[in-house]
Amino acid sequence: MITLKDIGEDALIQRIIPLAPRSENPIEGPGDDCAVIDPGPHSDFLTLLKTDALVENIHFLPEAPARKVGWKAAARVVSDFAAMGGRPECFLITLALSAETPVFWVEELYRGLGECLLKFNATLAGGETSSVPHGSAALISVAATGTVNRRHLVLRSGGNPGDVIFVTGHLGGSIQGKHLDFIPRIEQTDWLVANFKPSAMMDLSDGLGKDLPRLAAASECGFQVDDACIPCSPGCGLGGAIGDGEDFELLFTMSPAQVDALVQAWSLRFRDLRLSMIGQLTSTGAQPSLLLKGGWDHFTR
Amino acid sequence: MITLKDIGEDALIQRIIPLAPRSENPIEGPGDDCAVIDPGPHSDFLTLLKTDALVENIHFLPEAPARKVGWKAAARVVSDFAAMGGRPECFLITLALSAETPVFWVEELYRGLGECLLKFNATLAGGETSSVPHGSAALISVAATGTVNRRHLVLRSGGNPGDVIFVTGHLGGSIQGKHLDFIPRIEQTDWLVANFKPSAMMDLSDGLGKDLPRLAAASECGFQVDDACIPCSPGCGLGGAIGDGEDFELLFTMSPAQVDALVQAWSLRFRDLRLSMIGQLTSTGAQPSLLLKGGWDHFTR
Repeated sequence: MITLKDIGEDALIQRIIPLAPRSENPIEGPGDDCAVIDPGPHSDFLTLLKTDALVENIHFLPEAPARKVGWKAAARVVSDFAAMGGRPECFLITLALSAETPVFWVEELYRGLGECLLKFNATLAGGETSSVPHGSAALISVAATGTVNRRHLVLRSGGNPGDVIFVTGHLGGSIQGKHLDFIPRIEQTDWLVANFKPSAMMDLSDGLGKDLPRLAAASECGFQVDDACIPCSPGCGLGGAIGDGEDFELLFTMSPAQVDALVQAWSLRFRDLRLSMIGQLTSTGAQPSLLLKGGWDHFTR
Repeated sequence: MITLKDIGEDALIQRIIPLAPRSENPIEGPGDDCAVIDPGPHSDFLTLLKTDALVENIHFLPEAPARKVGWKAAARVVSDFAAMGGRPECFLITLALSAETPVFWVEELYRGLGECLLKFNATLAGGETSSVPHGSAALISVAATGTVNRRHLVLRSGGNPGDVIFVTGHLGGSIQGKHLDFIPRIEQTDWLVANFKPSAMMDLSDGLGKDLPRLAAASECGFQVDDACIPCSPGCGLGGAIGDGEDFELLFTMSPAQVDALVQAWSLRFRDLRLSMIGQLTSTGAQPSLLLKGGWDHFTR
């Protein structure tokens, strides 16, 4: 019998999405950092929807501080709204926990969630609690609505051959701690979409080796990357920078005509956050960097 | 150390909700079947948000047909939108599954989800897949947006002393099969809110013994129930009708002045679905039915 382990996450998604009805509006639906809902031409703003889950022993260890786990659960979703050029609004929190979970742990988790919502001007709209059988992993599922100005929406699919590929910050080694207390790059995306026109964007959650091919495929492009330009985290090699995942940095592309102005303006505006040009999109079929084989797949490893 | 088992689900929710920022709009926020978001006075429609989860061995058994599990996962959420007088729109589906899960099982699950979305004019907007550690329970979390005409919104909190308490259908024994293939009562709520003015409403998911006290508390009322009027499912006693849960029938209250007209109109419109008057709301402190002690709590049993 074929299991999820045999086919992996992306192939599973390809198989199941056609089994449920989709909106007839082509802008809407699965396949990007968030789903996009168009309330109609009378509105300057589009609605964004996102859901994301943290599973014990997959996304956090039982001994991780609950407050940081809560922060991470909300911040991952904020990062996805940022990746579309948007902002978060209302959150729904689902907790699936064993009856033996200490009340204090859940309160700390919620304090961390609350700190993240407060920082990014979002609110708690509701939630759900369920027990899980004894011995099952705890799970925190976060669903949220967001909003984006119609003119500022950036999809994964807008890249063109020749566009320059950028990443923010440093990649790899997130497991050393950053994965629990990262700051979603929403300050940067707010500024970026207001002043420039990124052609495609996503946040790096599964590692550059997994996420860049996704962005390129959505844009119907290939890509070339100069491995020497990939900004590795201190103490982290190229393999980690490509394959570790959970960087929550931005990956975006921009037409060559805007690149010089962007690089100059960025260095003045964000002195403490590196911006790296790592390569460019190509016509489909170009040879990707041979090293870009890493990245996280939920079911095949 | 105090655990969730010690305090139960409702006390947990009371402790954690204040730890996260809430909207300043009093209509919005946790505490009803759905969260309600007010887009502002220019709109005749309010946005509804709901999240709900199914956990293996809690809400369904591993041997249950995956297609019915999928139907159930979506139908529970549709039932919550119905309970507010609204309708579902966009769904986000989160699957947390072990890598050993058969692909066919997931496809069947999605077929069931898709059938429910199609029947109730909703669409799949996006989702999330995650692995869980080997041996952990599978989890399906469903988040959705809905909409309700501002004039038709029914909260749990609108009941008044003297209002008559109604339930639809028959209660108890859902585990015999109904819990996997029930029809959310949205046809009934559509009709009800268009023709009458229920003062308070919710769907019966945790059992009358748990849910009626919640509705009464939200309305700052007590209640009196005539046990002989509770419509028990065939082969099911009063204990099951009160305590089994997962009935997904409607519980609503209505001012006495509307009752005769409702009962007459209902019997003409919905010949195959019983409507039962089971009691009335009272001033706070009235003696509840002694038998109303059952119902499902996720952590204390």
